Amino acid sequence: MLPWDTELAGRLDHATILSEVLRDNPLGDPYERPLWVYVPPGYDDDPRVRYPSVYVIQGYTGFVTMWANRAPYRQPFVETADALFASGAAPGCVVVYVDAWTAYGGSQFVDSAGTGRYHTYLCDEVVPWVDARYRTLPDRESRAIAGKSSGGFGAMITPMLRPDLFGALASHAGDTLYELCYIPEFGKAARLLRQYDHDIMRWWEDFRSRTAFTKEADHTLLMVLGVSACFSPGPDGRPRLPFDPHSGQLLPEVWQRWLDWDPVRMVDRYAGQLRSLRAVWLDAGKRDEWFLDLGTEAFRAGLARVGVPDERVSFELYDATHMAIDYRYPLALSWLAHRLAR
Amino acid sequence: MLPWDTELAGRLDHATILSEVLRDNPLGDPYERPLWVYVPPGYDDDPRVRYPSVYVIQGYTGFVTMWANRAPYRQPFVETADALFASGAAPGCVVVYVDAWTAYGGSQFVDSAGTGRYHTYLCDEVVPWVDARYRTLPDRESRAIAGKSSGGFGAMITPMLRPDLFGALASHAGDTLYELCYIPEFGKAARLLRQYDHDIMRWWEDFRSRTAFTKEADHTLLMVLGVSACFSPGPDGRPRLPFDPHSGQLLPEVWQRWLDWDPVRMVDRYAGQLRSLRAVWLDAGKRDEWFLDLGTEAFRAGLARVGVPDERVSFELYDATHMAIDYRYPLALSWLAHRLAR
Amino acid sequence: MLPWDTELAGRLDHATILSEVLRDNPLGDPYERPLWVYVPPGYDDDPRVRYPSVYVIQGYTGFVTMWANRAPYRQPFVETADALFASGAAPGCVVVYVDAWTAYGGSQFVDSAGTGRYHTYLCDEVVPWVDARYRTLPDRESRAIAGKSSGGFGAMITPMLRPDLFGALASHAGDTLYELCYIPEFGKAARLLRQYDHDIMRWWEDFRSRTAFTKEADHTLLMVLGVSACFSPGPDGRPRLPFDPHSGQLLPEVWQRWLDWDPVRMVDRYAGQLRSLRAVWLDAGKRDEWFLDLGTEAFRAGLARVGVPDERVSFELYDATHMAIDYRYPLALSWLAHRLAR
Amino acid sequence: MLPWDTELAGRLDHATILSEVLRDNPLGDPYERPLWVYVPPGYDDDPRVRYPSVYVIQGYTGFVTMWANRAPYRQPFVETADALFASGAAPGCVVVYVDAWTAYGGSQFVDSAGTGRYHTYLCDEVVPWVDARYRTLPDRESRAIAGKSSGGFGAMITPMLRPDLFGALASHAGDTLYELCYIPEFGKAARLLRQYDHDIMRWWEDFRSRTAFTKEADHTLLMVLGVSACFSPGPDGRPRLPFDPHSGQLLPEVWQRWLDWDPVRMVDRYAGQLRSLRAVWLDAGKRDEWFLDLGTEAFRAGLARVGVPDERVSFELYDATHMAIDYRYPLALSWLAHRLAR
Repeated sequence: MLPWDTELAGRLDHATILSEVLRDNPLGDPYERPLWVYVPPGYDDDPRVRYPSVYVIQGYTGFVTMWANRAPYRQPFVETADALFASGAAPGCVVVYVDAWTAYGGSQFVDSAGTGRYHTYLCDEVVPWVDARYRTLPDRESRAIAGKSSGGFGAMITPMLRPDLFGALASHAGDTLYELCYIPEFGKAARLLRQYDHDIMRWWEDFRSRTAFTKEADHTLLMVLGVSACFSPGPDGRPRLPFDPHSGQLLPEVWQRWLDWDPVRMVDRYAGQLRSLRAVWLDAGKRDEWFLDLGTEAFRAGLARVGVPDERVSFELYDATHMAIDYRYPLALSWLAHRLAR
Repeated sequence: MLPWDTELAGRLDHATILSEVLRDNPLGDPYERPLWVYVPPGYDDDPRVRYPSVYVIQGYTGFVTMWANRAPYRQPFVETADALFASGAAPGCVVVYVDAWTAYGGSQFVDSAGTGRYHTYLCDEVVPWVDARYRTLPDRESRAIAGKSSGGFGAMITPMLRPDLFGALASHAGDTLYELCYIPEFGKAARLLRQYDHDIMRWWEDFRSRTAFTKEADHTLLMVLGVSACFSPGPDGRPRLPFDPHSGQLLPEVWQRWLDWDPVRMVDRYAGQLRSLRAVWLDAGKRDEWFLDLGTEAFRAGLARVGVPDERVSFELYDATHMAIDYRYPLALSWLAHRLAR
Repeated sequence: MLPWDTELAGRLDHATILSEVLRDNPLGDPYERPLWVYVPPGYDDDPRVRYPSVYVIQGYTGFVTMWANRAPYRQPFVETADALFASGAAPGCVVVYVDAWTAYGGSQFVDSAGTGRYHTYLCDEVVPWVDARYRTLPDRESRAIAGKSSGGFGAMITPMLRPDLFGALASHAGDTLYELCYIPEFGKAARLLRQYDHDIMRWWEDFRSRTAFTKEADHTLLMVLGVSACFSPGPDGRPRLPFDPHSGQLLPEVWQRWLDWDPVRMVDRYAGQLRSLRAVWLDAGKRDEWFLDLGTEAFRAGLARVGVPDERVSFELYDATHMAIDYRYPLALSWLAHRLAR
Repeated sequence: MLPWDTELAGRLDHATILSEVLRDNPLGDPYERPLWVYVPPGYDDDPRVRYPSVYVIQGYTGFVTMWANRAPYRQPFVETADALFASGAAPGCVVVYVDAWTAYGGSQFVDSAGTGRYHTYLCDEVVPWVDARYRTLPDRESRAIAGKSSGGFGAMITPMLRPDLFGALASHAGDTLYELCYIPEFGKAARLLRQYDHDIMRWWEDFRSRTAFTKEADHTLLMVLGVSACFSPGPDGRPRLPFDPHSGQLLPEVWQRWLDWDPVRMVDRYAGQLRSLRAVWLDAGKRDEWFLDLGTEAFRAGLARVGVPDERVSFELYDATHMAIDYRYPLALSWLAHRLAR
């Protein structure tokens, strides 16, 4: 396998979408957003054929142009996805690479007074934009959403909130079971905040003023700040931490706002919506640094509890950490491609 | 400093106490227990002098004869405590080394249907036994309790429950703020249980059948099992885990039983008792593996909240992990010795 | 700072070079190679101006298209380098991004019967190719070479071997002081080989047959195999390990072939060449996983020992590991740009 | 299994030996040394029976009274050894627990101008002292030596140097293959010395002035200093480090003095002596932090190379680190007890 660029059998369009709902977003982030749309081989040959679509969203700190990143001995997902369709291993799909980056590193794909209305942007702007310009099958039964980490979270919750749009999903090590994936981070964060007078905004000012990720605190505090902006903004839109910044002790009211967004805890509230899904792919590495293998197990148990039939669910834990699991994406894509209505 | 045995200036008696309340304890552990009682230099010289007493309890898996363990370049606490009194740096105290070991590694110094009535044993058997045989000042104002880790936990809760007995305490990295010190362990435990059909009793049988601590699972599962026996035994006395053994998800009812024993959460329920204390020493290492520095910070904040005057509290975080902090014990002992009524 | 693509003020050409010396390389790797050449802002405005050139080489497993990779909160080097020239902070240079990838992950920029003649390719093919097509100052006093890790190694040795071509260098955490950077890897490798009958080629076959980097052994064994191919190929070109694959014990004859390539040990043999250099930038992170901070310190001491004047050397250790130090590259580039003859 | 003291079936004498060769040792350490001698059950019953003897030596920082230390869920070696004889699983031996502690933490059981003549003390003072006072079989065929870590090193070298005294040995994770067990420590040490002006004696002064092992540097620098005192003292007896304290680079002349003490490299020089041994037990944990599993493997390969018959060697690697492997000691003791002449 050569490491340099590969020609695609399909076509990848680098588009730009002008979002109305992100205009005036609280962080002043751009509302003109990149959007990559891939059409499979053969798309341009027969204008009568319509295709299912899969929306792909990213993990925390991801932005759409990172999909072009190359790594040794592995091909980028854009290419492995293309190879899947080119080889005939999976029937063709339109694949939409969505950007939901914010200045805090991510949006969790929710509407938030702290970051902006990224859920609405995704559902009410990106989806119609794609359906209007590409020969998709514009129906929930033919539309899926997939992602890793925060993107896996987004892939779990978006079909719960909008079952009219999405009938299938794939989550790779998606954020869930918040007691295990988040609480230990709060302990680390509280310690790191000792250097910043227990004020995360002091860290944020420092972070903005220098080369990013040169201090031990950076990764943890960025995530804690950004997810607070998504899940627990104050009335003024400023992030409120779910823990005491001196001791790390949970603040029950704020923490409850986070728990309300825990897929494991949303399962019962959205039981009907989940039962309506035609295909759910769940996987995670058994050594995931955020215990997301356990979270995925808990979410899968929740699906069983509310009556999602086993044959619609693919569940796998494998030997890996949270990192370098991009090779799982084409497995899920192929599985979804065979299950979406066409 | 020579590493071998040192002569004590005071005297250490190795006694045995026959406990009535531990008879028929559910684990079949011995009810005849070792008890070490130390009297300071001069004790035998003047039979009219009475002394304050400090009860010293141990961390998880500790038992009383471990106090004789020697380590390179450090003297055992029994000797550093003795040196304190011998040098005149601290006024003499009777120091009582209590054994509360169980087959599961510890008792958390509570009364439990899972392990036995170790709280009652300590308060209603050991204390009177000592007072009857040694010239203590048999009064709460002259009696303290001190310990590390689980022993620090015991030192925090025992005066809350029995303010009639104990008027002072010292906790070194005591267990508290359970969301941070315990929940991450549950995640680790749930993973480790995969090798045991998600059944911790299978691990326990395996553990009992071979050399202890030769498997990665041993330390985590022993603690989880043992503390469950202490805090959340079932009606039959068998330990109930506070989390789902497949996913690690918290089981709210069982978890609440643990939280009821969290010193941070007991503070408000025992505000009056805490306000009655004459001296509270709290310390922990800033890199404690169980975030007990943060727990100690939270407990200290709780004391302030309920009105314990600052001048009665000594609080310090220092650069250390949870390990090798025995050199802190004589610091606390000296501080207490100066503050106990005599 | 926006995370998506940035327009360059200069121009980046994506070229291809057809190498004669890599034709028939032993690994069957391509001899048509990508080459990126960057010209600074203003280059196209005045055809009379000639520029110094800086050749940039990559760390192990790097290949040239990885320079386009994007990361959160940091700009790629191509862009930070461009910004340097655009802002006037550094006078313009031609920057040449060289590809020396092999199937084993790298070439160490040496001529080897195990991988190919990458040193000759770089010096006798790439340099003349660039000088023939771009308005460089084709002189050693105006030509530098820079890199990180294995690229830092290449940047240290290439001017020693070819002082007629390169008069300056920058090494970021370059491989050197082999007892510290390599020997611990041999211990790890020997252990990992237990799973492969102590035969690294068995691992290599396995590695080639599946998704890369999904096994713990992969990173260490790839490096050990590849560097053996570079430094100690057998007469048949096959890599010979410098250690016993059962015990990790050094094999003195093979190990000596590695030591002959240790920059710290080359210093005395190439003292005159090193004294001829006009600028040497050396840096590394103080927590480098391969002790390359110590190696850099040893190399710097060697330069002093053989009489390289202090004023020609920039030396800095900073708080970092081996990772995420790309922000150091523009610092070195700027420093070199001010020191190259023009 | 109860955790408190156990009655021995045999008898353990706590003796003191007055050493002539340690008088005037360079560190001013005591020359009156504790010595524990254990006699098996039945020893006092029949004064005609003589027993083989096994000398047990300790790892770095060990001293003889540490043999009394107790740990949870494990019995001390003194007790597991006693149980072996009491149960009849092994025929009775006299077991001698030797103290070779120094102010630097150990002696490596060699004669050194830096620490003292501990090899001579062991061989020419302790052995005759025991044989004079206990009914041993005072012959090499009935005398073994055993130890862990530095004690394993001592157990490997002492019979090479004194085959007239020792005819059998057991090494648990003994120090050997110095490129792997020591060189990485030199890298760590060089870094740690940055805080001490690159002068290890500055660290030593600091270490002596405060609570030991409260700084990250302590464990590594103590070992490096102490082993330098043993293997490479200067003419004045002061330790000379085998590496440059700025860069960690090996100093070949000093390093060679260490290598001269590497059991793996002594094998060929002492081939005859090794061939004369009747029993050699070698084991180590596969995850030993100092790669001593690999060292043990290399030493075992050396024995085969010089013609030690396989049936005289027991070799085993098992799943463990360097720590908590005391449960291996009775396995070796039993094996030796069956093989010593009686």
